[in-house]
Amino acid sequence: MSEALDSRPLRLLAVSGSLRRASTNTAVLEALAALAPGDLEVTLYRGLAELPAFNPDDDGEGVTPPAQVRLLRDLVATADGLFIAAPEYAHGVPGALKNALDWLVASDVFPGKPVALVNTASRAFHAQAALRETLATMAARLVPEAFATLSLTAKPIDRDAIVSDERSARVLRDALVAFRAAIAGG
Amino acid sequence: MSEALDSRPLRLLAVSGSLRRASTNTAVLEALAALAPGDLEVTLYRGLAELPAFNPDDDGEGVTPPAQVRLLRDLVATADGLFIAAPEYAHGVPGALKNALDWLVASDVFPGKPVALVNTASRAFHAQAALRETLATMAARLVPEAFATLSLTAKPIDRDAIVSDERSARVLRDALVAFRAAIAGG
Repeated sequence: MSEALDSRPLRLLAVSGSLRRASTNTAVLEALAALAPGDLEVTLYRGLAELPAFNPDDDGEGVTPPAQVRLLRDLVATADGLFIAAPEYAHGVPGALKNALDWLVASDVFPGKPVALVNTASRAFHAQAALRETLATMAARLVPEAFATLSLTAKPIDRDAIVSDERSARVLRDALVAFRAAIAGG
Repeated sequence: MSEALDSRPLRLLAVSGSLRRASTNTAVLEALAALAPGDLEVTLYRGLAELPAFNPDDDGEGVTPPAQVRLLRDLVATADGLFIAAPEYAHGVPGALKNALDWLVASDVFPGKPVALVNTASRAFHAQAALRETLATMAARLVPEAFATLSLTAKPIDRDAIVSDERSARVLRDALVAFRAAIAGG
């Protein structure tokens, strides 16, 4: 771990694959942010709905990508790691989330980036597997020891209910600590 | 086959998963439209970039989905079948295409809809497999005998080059005929 890293909190970017207002996935990431110890800052990405559809013509050499894309890349570039929580839609990754990843493929901010997945429904394995395959292809550094699986059957469920649920809170705290250790260990 | 079907051309909707101007996938679908016999109408869907990110809150009971979503659903509802051609991005389905499918999941226009895939790069199997899994989950009627695989190595390639390439044209004509037979056979 570098001294620069030692002297500031780690910055984690949390990306929810659901745009639903009462999204369980978003609630879990909000709980993660609430539970984070002082040396970890968890920020939720809120720009998914504003990202344009990925078009290679709007990217690459000599082209300035759309503002929302530059913002996403900046957030990823300055993050020490990413938490991603996604629902499964028709046995696949939500298109809006995959679209965000499509914009990151061609950029130089993603390779080596530590990424942990949060799964709020353990029976949904197709989207998780597809997400792992895509993230590995993008040369993310997957950190499985920081993956968190919760079984949240009561819906809708909000941040406070997750934070005050002892088992869920422990799972999320453990994931945060494991992620911090993995990032620090480099 | 019903008499109503007998008396009019079959309507096929062609959906390209790429927004690139010089997209091979779009060019192949344009070639498909150009090669279609008189009793088949192939229309390209051009609205992918204008579709909002899928949000379950903007759908479902008592909610009017966005105009672009209603247009897509109308096009699918009135089509006798769909051709889909998609590139592979980071071993996955393009997010923009999956987003369109996400909007169709909750609608009643998709179950039983005949769907054929066009693959322009046979080595790209991850996205095709994920697409098949998602389409099957959406209760599409996959028509494998109308799937078309082309090996288009020269890029960029346009519609006319594909139409005038004897082997490619034959593959596409065969796919159209097989799709027509499958739809007519019910």
